[in-house]
Amino acid sequence: MELPSFEVPVVLAPMGGFATVALVAAVCEAGGLGILAAAYLTPEQIAAQGAELRSRTRKPFGINLFIENPPYEAEDAVVAHAHARIGTLRAELGMAQPATPARPVDHYRAQIDAVLEARPDVFSFTFGIPDARTLERFRAAGTFTLGTATTVAEAIALREAGVDGVIAQGAEAGAHRGTFLAAVDESLIGTIALVPQVVDATGLPVIAAGGIGDGRGVAAALALGARAAALGTTFLLAPEASTSPAHRAVLTSERVRHTVLTRAFSGKSARGVPNRFTAAIRDPDDIAPYPFQNAMTRDVRNAAAASGNPEYVSLWAGQAAPLAREQPAAQIVRRVVDEARAAVERVRAEL
Amino acid sequence: MELPSFEVPVVLAPMGGFATVALVAAVCEAGGLGILAAAYLTPEQIAAQGAELRSRTRKPFGINLFIENPPYEAEDAVVAHAHARIGTLRAELGMAQPATPARPVDHYRAQIDAVLEARPDVFSFTFGIPDARTLERFRAAGTFTLGTATTVAEAIALREAGVDGVIAQGAEAGAHRGTFLAAVDESLIGTIALVPQVVDATGLPVIAAGGIGDGRGVAAALALGARAAALGTTFLLAPEASTSPAHRAVLTSERVRHTVLTRAFSGKSARGVPNRFTAAIRDPDDIAPYPFQNAMTRDVRNAAAASGNPEYVSLWAGQAAPLAREQPAAQIVRRVVDEARAAVERVRAEL
Repeated sequence: MELPSFEVPVVLAPMGGFATVALVAAVCEAGGLGILAAAYLTPEQIAAQGAELRSRTRKPFGINLFIENPPYEAEDAVVAHAHARIGTLRAELGMAQPATPARPVDHYRAQIDAVLEARPDVFSFTFGIPDARTLERFRAAGTFTLGTATTVAEAIALREAGVDGVIAQGAEAGAHRGTFLAAVDESLIGTIALVPQVVDATGLPVIAAGGIGDGRGVAAALALGARAAALGTTFLLAPEASTSPAHRAVLTSERVRHTVLTRAFSGKSARGVPNRFTAAIRDPDDIAPYPFQNAMTRDVRNAAAASGNPEYVSLWAGQAAPLAREQPAAQIVRRVVDEARAAVERVRAEL
Repeated sequence: MELPSFEVPVVLAPMGGFATVALVAAVCEAGGLGILAAAYLTPEQIAAQGAELRSRTRKPFGINLFIENPPYEAEDAVVAHAHARIGTLRAELGMAQPATPARPVDHYRAQIDAVLEARPDVFSFTFGIPDARTLERFRAAGTFTLGTATTVAEAIALREAGVDGVIAQGAEAGAHRGTFLAAVDESLIGTIALVPQVVDATGLPVIAAGGIGDGRGVAAALALGARAAALGTTFLLAPEASTSPAHRAVLTSERVRHTVLTRAFSGKSARGVPNRFTAAIRDPDDIAPYPFQNAMTRDVRNAAAASGNPEYVSLWAGQAAPLAREQPAAQIVRRVVDEARAAVERVRAEL
């Protein structure tokens, strides 16, 4: 299946908890491909936000899910230990420790159904490969499927499963690593090296993600063979994003020059600015597997965000975060395209 | 000072132990900037190879050194323990264990003098910043100084010291990390994110290094704002390189898709293909600091290379290694420039 055509080669990376319908619609209306992050949405929210998106734009858009393998299972002792460890952070914030740990909700199949019913032009996904039946349903619906790969082996696995396109996620990317075959620390390949290898190995349309913060990066991604460049962190500063004021303040400070991979918030590796939370919860023995850790830390993150405290929230940021500028999303899209065009003309003169 | 002009924006990354005078000269003659790796050469060898290089090409060339801080000091117990640990690998190879550990030779000041006398157009360096007096001597000689940075902070430190240009070394790069301010694991920034930030922060001429394996990467590097792209691993397969047959065999195998950072060989972090040596020597307590570890492992590496055994040699490779093709160096230069031009024309049509 061919990648739905959009006017400019800029993709809004799916950002759960940050990308509002307004942000996704603004990117689409500016000619880019907006992707709604639905992993943290209920099936009802997916239906409502999908419908709202359709009402706001006639342009193509995508919806992203995490690929899950319910029923979720974890050892009680592991969960109890992680719960106790998170309790020490609740104590630091003066929050009461729940008697029992919050448990992840299993609504994965219903999420898939909701995405299918929302009929996005693109179904993108992270953390694995949907089962054959699910992929077949999207194919029958005429939806382009777009899987996330952090290694060439993952890209080949996606192609062999019949996925239509690949997001090649370099090690620079903010937030969750999409890694699903090898260990994360064996799957940290920079975008400039990963993209051409994925292009060559799969022959599929490839979208480059990771470390792309302005139009120079967009031009670089296209030169590497990508069909478009996905930007995430750059859009966190847009007024349409639901980024918390505490997070925005960190993103515009010198602190954003240094990011780390952490499993503290969700149980899965993700890149962000280190803070009290990541420093306190770094021993693998203290962390429950995803999605248990994610469910247990949610109230702490929400409370800290509400009180403007950056030390107990996930400060997701990619390595190009210092290149971000506060602008409305449509202006960001237009600016990076202008910058990309200027970069290409400059390089053409140099070569 | 302005970067000496060379015809095509391709730099041969300095590769100690691999880059022969013939390889450096071939890159220069093809219009790129060849850099002779002199860190492992004696002052006499620097003089001889510098003279040979001058006789082989009238084009600009560079010489690279490691910035050292002699006198070298390490705790005897640390060195003795590392020596014993390396001894277990000698036993695996049937090699006798020396009674006392080999010690690093201190000829750093004489190396600096030798480079100055060789009058290269470019003096590039790694692992730090030369003292002010040394930089002043190169300035007086009209030599362009080019320091290696793996973070924006290092790039700014180089500029503040009066260095003329910066090699921005992304996390993808093969062999030694140039990191000299923060810890290596806090200084692993991908090339696509690092280069534009270094360009913006310094205003100096920047050469991009790391993860660039063909002309798509060269075009990407230029789009990011670099004046040229440095390629290393790609040239290891050139017949002019002194890459061992065992190393060449690994570089052309599937094994090269996975690389790791290891301190096992030299005491400094470097990227290469994992083997028996990197698996056996990975506990930081088993490794002496650079250059002690480097001196102690040399005989093992040399013996293994001589016998064609890839398991006990440093199999340096960057993350773009799978893109390398066996070609004479001049053909590599011409091919990647052609590929870069084609990439730019393709991107121009897409934007």
